[in-house]
Amino acid sequence: MEQEQRRLTGSFSIQDSIQSLTSSLGSQSTLLSSCTVSPAAERLRHILREEDEPTPTLFTEMDTLQHEGGEMEWKESARWVKFEEKVEEGGERWSKPHVSTLSLHSLFELRTCLQTGCILLDLEGYSLPQIVDDIIEKQVQEGLIAPELREKVSFVLLRKHRHQTKKPIHRSLADLGKPSPSNRSPSPSPSPRSGSGFHRSTEDLRAHQSGGLSKLHPSQCRSMNDISVTPSSDQLKNKFMKKIPRDAEASNVLIGEVDFLDKPLVAFVRLAQAATLGGLTEVPVPTRFLFVLLGPNGKAKSYNEIGRAMATLMVDDLFSDVAYKARDRDDLIAGIDEFLDEVIVLPPGEWDPKIRIEPPKKLPSADMRKSVLTLNELGQPNGNAGGGGASAEDEEMPAPHELGEELKFTGRFCGGLWLDIKRKVPWCLSDFYDGFHIQSISAVLFIYLGCITNAITFGGLLGDATDNYQGVMESFLGTALAGAVFCFFGGQPLIILSSTGPILIFEKLLYEFSINNDIDYMEIRLWIGLHSCLQCLILVATDASYIIKYMTRFTEEGFSSLISFIFISDALKKMMGTFNYYPINREFKPDYITSYKCECQAPDQVAFNTSSPLGLENISDYSMFNFTALDWSQMTKKECLRFGGSLVGKACKYVPDLAMLSFILFFGTYSMTISLKKFKSSRYFPTKCRALIADFSIIISILVFCALDYVLSLDTPKLHVPTQIKPTRPDRGWIVMPLGKNPWWMCMASFVPALLVTILIFMDQQITAVIVNRKENKLKKGCGYHLDLFWVGILMAVCSFMGLPWYVAATVISIAHIDSLRMESESSAPGEQPQFLGVREQRFTGILVFVLTGVSVFLAPVLQYIPMPVLYGVFLYMGVASLHGIQFWERMKLYLMPAKHQPDFAFLRHVPLRRVHLFTLVQIICLAVLWILKSTVAAIIFPVMILGLMVVRRMLDLIFSQHDLAWLDDILPDKDKKKKEDEKKKKEKKKAKADEHNNSDEECC
Amino acid sequence: MEQEQRRLTGSFSIQDSIQSLTSSLGSQSTLLSSCTVSPAAERLRHILREEDEPTPTLFTEMDTLQHEGGEMEWKESARWVKFEEKVEEGGERWSKPHVSTLSLHSLFELRTCLQTGCILLDLEGYSLPQIVDDIIEKQVQEGLIAPELREKVSFVLLRKHRHQTKKPIHRSLADLGKPSPSNRSPSPSPSPRSGSGFHRSTEDLRAHQSGGLSKLHPSQCRSMNDISVTPSSDQLKNKFMKKIPRDAEASNVLIGEVDFLDKPLVAFVRLAQAATLGGLTEVPVPTRFLFVLLGPNGKAKSYNEIGRAMATLMVDDLFSDVAYKARDRDDLIAGIDEFLDEVIVLPPGEWDPKIRIEPPKKLPSADMRKSVLTLNELGQPNGNAGGGGASAEDEEMPAPHELGEELKFTGRFCGGLWLDIKRKVPWCLSDFYDGFHIQSISAVLFIYLGCITNAITFGGLLGDATDNYQGVMESFLGTALAGAVFCFFGGQPLIILSSTGPILIFEKLLYEFSINNDIDYMEIRLWIGLHSCLQCLILVATDASYIIKYMTRFTEEGFSSLISFIFISDALKKMMGTFNYYPINREFKPDYITSYKCECQAPDQVAFNTSSPLGLENISDYSMFNFTALDWSQMTKKECLRFGGSLVGKACKYVPDLAMLSFILFFGTYSMTISLKKFKSSRYFPTKCRALIADFSIIISILVFCALDYVLSLDTPKLHVPTQIKPTRPDRGWIVMPLGKNPWWMCMASFVPALLVTILIFMDQQITAVIVNRKENKLKKGCGYHLDLFWVGILMAVCSFMGLPWYVAATVISIAHIDSLRMESESSAPGEQPQFLGVREQRFTGILVFVLTGVSVFLAPVLQYIPMPVLYGVFLYMGVASLHGIQFWERMKLYLMPAKHQPDFAFLRHVPLRRVHLFTLVQIICLAVLWILKSTVAAIIFPVMILGLMVVRRMLDLIFSQHDLAWLDDILPDKDKKKKEDEKKKKEKKKAKADEHNNSDEECC
Repeated sequence: MEQEQRRLTGSFSIQDSIQSLTSSLGSQSTLLSSCTVSPAAERLRHILREEDEPTPTLFTEMDTLQHEGGEMEWKESARWVKFEEKVEEGGERWSKPHVSTLSLHSLFELRTCLQTGCILLDLEGYSLPQIVDDIIEKQVQEGLIAPELREKVSFVLLRKHRHQTKKPIHRSLADLGKPSPSNRSPSPSPSPRSGSGFHRSTEDLRAHQSGGLSKLHPSQCRSMNDISVTPSSDQLKNKFMKKIPRDAEASNVLIGEVDFLDKPLVAFVRLAQAATLGGLTEVPVPTRFLFVLLGPNGKAKSYNEIGRAMATLMVDDLFSDVAYKARDRDDLIAGIDEFLDEVIVLPPGEWDPKIRIEPPKKLPSADMRKSVLTLNELGQPNGNAGGGGASAEDEEMPAPHELGEELKFTGRFCGGLWLDIKRKVPWCLSDFYDGFHIQSISAVLFIYLGCITNAITFGGLLGDATDNYQGVMESFLGTALAGAVFCFFGGQPLIILSSTGPILIFEKLLYEFSINNDIDYMEIRLWIGLHSCLQCLILVATDASYIIKYMTRFTEEGFSSLISFIFISDALKKMMGTFNYYPINREFKPDYITSYKCECQAPDQVAFNTSSPLGLENISDYSMFNFTALDWSQMTKKECLRFGGSLVGKACKYVPDLAMLSFILFFGTYSMTISLKKFKSSRYFPTKCRALIADFSIIISILVFCALDYVLSLDTPKLHVPTQIKPTRPDRGWIVMPLGKNPWWMCMASFVPALLVTILIFMDQQITAVIVNRKENKLKKGCGYHLDLFWVGILMAVCSFMGLPWYVAATVISIAHIDSLRMESESSAPGEQPQFLGVREQRFTGILVFVLTGVSVFLAPVLQYIPMPVLYGVFLYMGVASLHGIQFWERMKLYLMPAKHQPDFAFLRHVPLRRVHLFTLVQIICLAVLWILKSTVAAIIFPVMILGLMVVRRMLDLIFSQHDLAWLDDILPDKDKKKKEDEKKKKEKKKAKADEHNNSDEECC
Repeated sequence: MEQEQRRLTGSFSIQDSIQSLTSSLGSQSTLLSSCTVSPAAERLRHILREEDEPTPTLFTEMDTLQHEGGEMEWKESARWVKFEEKVEEGGERWSKPHVSTLSLHSLFELRTCLQTGCILLDLEGYSLPQIVDDIIEKQVQEGLIAPELREKVSFVLLRKHRHQTKKPIHRSLADLGKPSPSNRSPSPSPSPRSGSGFHRSTEDLRAHQSGGLSKLHPSQCRSMNDISVTPSSDQLKNKFMKKIPRDAEASNVLIGEVDFLDKPLVAFVRLAQAATLGGLTEVPVPTRFLFVLLGPNGKAKSYNEIGRAMATLMVDDLFSDVAYKARDRDDLIAGIDEFLDEVIVLPPGEWDPKIRIEPPKKLPSADMRKSVLTLNELGQPNGNAGGGGASAEDEEMPAPHELGEELKFTGRFCGGLWLDIKRKVPWCLSDFYDGFHIQSISAVLFIYLGCITNAITFGGLLGDATDNYQGVMESFLGTALAGAVFCFFGGQPLIILSSTGPILIFEKLLYEFSINNDIDYMEIRLWIGLHSCLQCLILVATDASYIIKYMTRFTEEGFSSLISFIFISDALKKMMGTFNYYPINREFKPDYITSYKCECQAPDQVAFNTSSPLGLENISDYSMFNFTALDWSQMTKKECLRFGGSLVGKACKYVPDLAMLSFILFFGTYSMTISLKKFKSSRYFPTKCRALIADFSIIISILVFCALDYVLSLDTPKLHVPTQIKPTRPDRGWIVMPLGKNPWWMCMASFVPALLVTILIFMDQQITAVIVNRKENKLKKGCGYHLDLFWVGILMAVCSFMGLPWYVAATVISIAHIDSLRMESESSAPGEQPQFLGVREQRFTGILVFVLTGVSVFLAPVLQYIPMPVLYGVFLYMGVASLHGIQFWERMKLYLMPAKHQPDFAFLRHVPLRRVHLFTLVQIICLAVLWILKSTVAAIIFPVMILGLMVVRRMLDLIFSQHDLAWLDDILPDKDKKKKEDEKKKKEKKKAKADEHNNSDEECC
C-alpha cells in the first residue's frame, strides 16, 4: 500500500533516496534514519548476494525520433559499450569515445521517470510489435495514457531505425552536386531550402510538428510496421561487432518528441530472454532491455539527457547487474540511488561541460565496487568515492615486494632446481607456438643485430687480449652455442647470454699471468672453467640463489642503470672513435686544394737495406729484382707502408667525409628509432599500422640508414663477420685437452680464481634475471633462477673445453629483448586504453637469434652492407631505452623540476621531497663510485661491488624510516615480515573495533 | 513558522530542493510543481538582481584539527583560489592544483548541515575569540549544544593554526638523523614508535582521542587562546600572496573531530566587514566567511569531504555571490541547489575518483552562468549544463568573419586613411614604451638575422639579374630605409618589409627589355616607380583596400601556406645547393689516398700563346719575364686557373667534409630550435626560465651551431655583408635623374608596366596585412590598411629615386615577427592555464631591426662567423612555424588520420568528413596550380593569381552549402548579410514563440 501511494505521489520516494544518501552523518539528531548501511545498499545486497553467474555485458544504443521530410524515423544518436560515442549531427560520424558527463538534473528526472513510468520485468517478448503492444497495454491499464492513443503510440514506436554507419570517402565526389550535405533521403518536398541551409533541421522539426502526426497519418498508412523483422545485411556486416564481447546483449533506449501526448510516456522493459528484434539495433546483438521515453513537444533536449542518463546507467557494471536481477521497481530505484551515491561531481565553475573527457587510463574494477556493497559489514561509511581529497587511502602502504616462491629456500638438495623444472615443464609446448607472431620477426632481427655486433666487438677485444686464442670466430661460435642451449633449456628464455666486461678483464689478466709464468693459457682456463662450473652446481644444489631476495629496487635499479650508462657511454665512445679514426682536415680550404696531397716516397735506399731485413723477407714474393724500379707513386697507402715507403703530404693523415657521415648515420639511426617508437601514440594511420611501425622501428631505421649509406657509397666502416669456420689462431684446435702442459697442482690451484669467476657470473646472471622477472613485466610462465644458473654452469664447462669465451646474462640486451616482445591488449570497448598484457614469453625468438648468429658466417655477403655507426646508434638506443621506467631515473629528473611541475608519482604524495632527493643522492654517489671502480683494474671485482650496494641499502635503514623506504624502495625481507606481523595485529584490533562500532550502529537502526 | 519547522525536521527542505531540481520535466502529472523556473532560481534571481558592485574574490583555506603529541592544533589541509590544492600528507607539499571532485553524498550532507546548523550573517566581528564566543552563544541559544561545553568548544576553536609552508631543500641533510619524517614538532612522548612508522598518525589519533580532552585539559591551561592576534611574519612573507587577487577576502573552513560532542556542531559565519583574524589564514587576507564543523569521533573522512564541498562552494563564482548577498538560511540553501543543478556528474564506472583532474584550458565564464540565472525569461529549461550530449549548441554557427571597421568603405576622399591615422595616433607613445621587454631582444635578433639573410640572398639575385645595378649593398640600404620608415609611420608596424620573388622577376624582365631596346634601365625604372606610387595613392584615396574583405580564410590560408611552402622549399634547395657546391668524393677509399691529388699543370705553352691573348693581358701585372719559371705546383686553385693552368687529378672537383658539416649545421639549427620551442611545455626548470629559453630558442640554436662551426674551424660558407657603403656598380650614384636618357614618351608609357607592379604590391601587401591582423592574433591597436599602402607607395617613389629595390610586406617574416612577440598571461590562480593575451604591438622592434640592418656594414666582423647553413636552418624553421595554426594545414593532415583519431575540431563536428576532404582537395589543387605557375615566367602575375583564388572561392558557393562553408571558411560578405537578416527574422520568431511559451508556463505556476 505504502509503495502504491509512493508511486502515485512520487515525492516520498525522493525523500527516501536522499535520506539514504545523507545517512552517514548519522548522529545529526534531525535526520530520521542514521545507520551506516543505507536502505538502498541493503536492498541491493539482497539481490546481488545471490551471485551465481555473471551477467552479460550490455551494449546500449540510443535512438531518437526524427521528423524528416514528412516522415518519422528513429535515428541512432549515441551508443555505449563502456564509454559514450555520439553521432556528430553535422559531421555524420561517430565522436571519439568519451566519459558520459551527465547533469545531476537528468539523473533525478530519470529517477522520477522510473518511479512513475511503467516497468515490465521479464516480459516474454520475441518481436518488437508484440513488445510494443504489451507496453501500450500496460500503460493503458495503469491509466497512464488514454486508450485512443494506442494506435498513434504504436505507429511511432514501430518506425524504421536508421543507424549511423560509416560512409566511404569515395562518395565525396559523387556528392558534388548536392548542396545540402545531411539531406540523405531524397526529399519529396520541393521547398527552396538550399539558401538557408543552417537551422534547417530545427526548422523542419518545428514545421512538421506543428502540422503534427494527424497530417502525416493518411499518407503513411502503407505500413503500421516499418521495422524489418530480421537483421539487415548492413547490421550483419557491421565491423563494430568485434568491439562488443561475444556474449553481449543489447539495451535500447528510444527517445522521442510527439505532439499527441500531453505528458511523458515512460516504459522500462526487461525481456525474459534476449531476442533479436530486427533492425532495432545497429549490430546483430539480441536485445534484453528497452527503455522508451516519448514526451510532448518542446523538451527534446531534456529527454535526450534523460536518455543519456539511462544509457549510462545501463552500461554501469553495478546498475546493469541490478537491472538484470531487479525484482521490482524499487530495486531499480535503489540501483539508481547507489549509483548516485558513488557518482563523482565536478563543480560547474571549475569545469566546462562541453569538454569531452577522454577515457581514463585505468578504471577502478567493478568487482571492488560490488564487494564494497556486499561486504559493507566492515563498517566503511558510504560515499567514500569522493575524490582527490580522501585521506584514508593515503595511509596505505604500497604493495610489498614479492619475489614469489621461486626464491624460497627449500632446504632440500636441488629443491629449487626441481621446483624450477616442475614450473617450466607445463609450458614447454607453448614456449614454441607462442613465438609465432609478426612481432617476433622484428625482435629476432633487432636482437640478432645486437648480438652479432656485441660478438664482433667483444671478439675483437678478446682477440687483442689473448693474442687471438679467442677471437671473433670463437666469439661467434660461442655466442651461438651458449645462447641457443640456454634459450632451449634455461629457466628464463627471455634472457640473452653475451660476453660481459668483467669476464673480458679476467681473461686479459689471466692471459698475461700465464704468459709471464709460462703456463699454458688454454689449459688453466679449462680448469678454472671446470671448477667454476662445479661451484655453480653447488650453488644450484643448495638453493643459494635465494639470497638475491635481499636485492631491493635500490640495488636492482642501481645495477641496471649503471649497465645502461655503460652502454650509452660505450656507444658514444665508439662513435667518437670514428672521429679519431677518420680525422677531419680542419685547415682545409677549397682554394688550396692543389697543396693537399699524399705521396708515397721511396725509402732512403741505404737506410732501408740496413735497417729492416725483416721487411725484405716479407716482400720476397714480389719481384725483388724490380725493387728499385717500383713505381712508388702508383702504390696504395698499404702497399707503400708495406714496402717501407713513407707517406708525405698534408692530406695523408686525414680522411674526408667519413667521420661526418658516420655521425649522421649514428645519430640518424638513434633519433629515427626514437621517433618511430613515439609514432605509436600519434594520430596518423590506423592503429595496427602504427603498432607495426613501432614494433619494427629499429629495423626500419637500420634499413633506412643502410640505404642512405649505400646510396652515398662512401667507404664507411662496415660490419665484417668471419666467412670461414676455423679457429682464429691456426695453432689451436676446437678441443682443449685438460692435462699435459701444466703441472698437476695447477688443476687444484685454479680453484681460487674460479671462485672469483663464480661470484662474477652468479651476480651478473641473477641480477639480470631479477630485472627481467620484474613484476612490471607481468611474466606469467614463472622464472627459474636455479635452472638458469645450472645451465650457465654447464655451458661454462663446455665452452672451456672448446676454448670458447664464457657467457652470462647481458642486462641491456635482455631488456631490449623483452621490450621488443611487449603485448598490448587490442582495446575492446571503444575508448578503453589498451592495457599492457605482458611479454610474449617463448623460446622461439631466442633460439632463432642464436641460430642466425651461428650461420652468420654464411650471411656475411648481406651483413657487409651494414655500417658500424648504424649499429652504434642501435646500441645507444638500447641503452637509453633500458632506462625507461626505472624509478631511479625518474627521481633523478626530479632534481631539475620545480615542485609544482613534478609528475604525480605515488611516492611523492607520501614522502617529503627532500627525503626523496636524499635517497636519490645516495644512489647517485654509489653509482659514481662504481663507475670509477669500473674504469680501473678493479673492474674485475665489479659484480662483487653489487654486494656492496646491498650493504649500503642495509645502512639506509638507519637513515630512512621504513615508511619512506617502502615507497622509495622495498622493505628488506625480515623487516617485511615484522611489518606484516605488526599489520596483522593492527588489523585484528581494527576489526574488533569495527565490529563494536557496527553493533552499536545496528542498535541505532 | 513553516520555515522553523523545516529547520527542525530537516527533511521537508530536502524534498523541496529535489523538487526544484526535478521540476523541468514539467508535465509529469505526479510532480507537484511544474514551472520552468525552479523556486531556488527564483530566490536567487531576487538577491542577485540587485547587482550593483561585484563581490570580492574569495580565497578559501581548509584547516583540520590535528591531535599530535598530546596537543591539538589546526593544520592547513587544502586551499582554493580557483582550483583545489591539497597538502600531501606524507609528502609535506602542495599537490598540483586540480579540479575538486566531490562526492554527491558530501554535498547533500553539507546541505543538511546548513539546514540544521547555526547561521550567523553579518556578524560584527573583529577578533577570533569574540567571533567564537558569538558562535557558541548562538549554538547554546538554539539548543544545539549543552551550555557546559562552551569552554571546551572555545578551547578547541582557538588552538593555533599551522600552515603548510615550503621547506627549503637544504634541510634534508640536517634531517638525516631523524628516522620519522613527518614528526616535526618535538614529540614529548617517549614511545618507541620509530619501528612501526606507518599508521602512526592514525594510531596517535586514536590513542589521544581515547584519552580525550579531559586528560589534556589540565596540562594545557596555559592559554585558552593559542592563536596569535596579528599576522605572523611567515604570513606576511608568503609568496603565495601574489597568486591571490588584491581585493580578495578569505573564507576559512575549520573541520575537526572531538570526543566531547555527540552530534556535529555546525556554524556558518559571514562577517559584516572582512577582518584579519591573526594567524587564522595562511596569507594576510582578511577573513569574511567562517565555516566550522566539529563532530564526534570516527567520521573524520566524512567531515573532511563536507569541508571540501563547502570550500569548493565558496570559490564557486555563483555561490560566493549568493553567500555575500544571502538574506537568510534559505538563500544559502537555494545557492547550493542552484549549484547542484549545474553540477557535472561522472559515472563511477567510467572514472576513477582517485584521478586528479587537471584544470581545463578554458572555462565557461561565470557571467554567463549568472546571466542564465537572471535572464531565465527566455524560457530556457534548467539543467542544460549537462555535457557532451547536448545538441542545441551544435546548431549554432561559428562566429562570423569580422574584418572590423578598418575595411569599411567610407565613400569619402581619403576617408579610410584619415580613420587609420585617427586610430593610430592615440597609441603613438605606447608604440615605443611597449617595446621595452626582454622578449624584444630575442625578436630583434631573430628578425634581424632573417632580414639580412634575405637582403643578401635577394641582393645577390638582383645583382645577377640587373648586372649589379642593384646589388647586395643597395639591398641592404633599401631594406634598412624602407623598413625603418614603414615601422615608424606605417599602420601596422608588425609588418616587415622585404624584397619578394615577383618583384625580382619583374626587375629581371625589365632589365632584359631595356638592354635589348637600348633604354636606360634606371630611368625607366624610376618612372615606373613614380607611376606605381601614384596609383597606390589613388587606391588609398579611394579606400580601394576595402575589397580585401572578400578575401576569406580560403584565400588567405591558401596564400600564406603557399608562401610558407616556398620558404621551406627554398631553404631545402639552398641546402641541397651546398651538396653541389661542395661535391663529395664518393669513390674515396682511405687506402687509395695516394692517388687522390690535384695538381696545377702549366698550360701547353704553344696553345697558350696562340689561344688566349686575353689571359695574357690579365696577368700583365705579374712578372711576365718569369712566366715560364712560375712554380706551378705551388699555386692555389684560383691562381692556377687565373694563369691559365689546368687542374689535373682525381681530387680536384671534390671538397671534403663541408657538405656534410653544412647539413649537420642546417638540420641541427632547425631541430634544436623546434625542440627548444617545445621545451616551454616541459616539466623541467621554473616557468620563467622555460619561457625565456623558448623565447630565445632561435638565438640559442644559432649561437650553439655557430660555436660548433667555430670549434671545427672548417671553411663552411659564411655570411658576408658588404663592408663599405658605396653603390655596387661604380658607374651609378645614389640619385637617379628622372629625365635625360630616355625619350619623353617613356615617362607616359611606363604607366602600363606600373599597373602590373601596383597590383603586385597591392595584393602582396594587403594579404600579408590581413594575415597579420587575423583575429587569432588578438591585436588591440587596430590596423591601418590604407596607411600601410600609403607608405609603401611613398617608399616606392623614394627607392626609385635612389635606385634601391622596391619593398613590400613579407608574409613569412612578418608572421615570425608576431610569433616572437606573443604575450601570455602569467597564470593568476594556481592551475589556471596561461592565456594568450595578444602580441606586443609596438614599433620599437621593427625600427631596431632595420637600424641594425643599416649598420650591418659595421657589424661585418661579427657577422662573418655565422655560417650560411645555420641561417638556412632558421629559414626552414620560419617556414614550418608559419604553417602552425593554419586550418588548411590541419585539414591536410586529416587525410592521413583514421576518423577515430582525428582531433575534435569544431568543423568536424558539423561538416561531414568527405565534404571537409573535398574542400581541402580543392585548396590543394589550387595551390598546386599556383606552384606550377610560380615556377614559370608567369610568376610575375603570381599575386594576380590570388584574385583567381578569390574567384574559385566564389564558385565554391555552388558546390558547398553555406553551412559547411561557414564552418570551413567564412561566408562571403553579401551572403553574410543575407544570413544575418535571415537569422534576425528567425530570432524574432523564436522570441515570439518563447514569450508565448513562457506565458503559458507562468500560468501553470
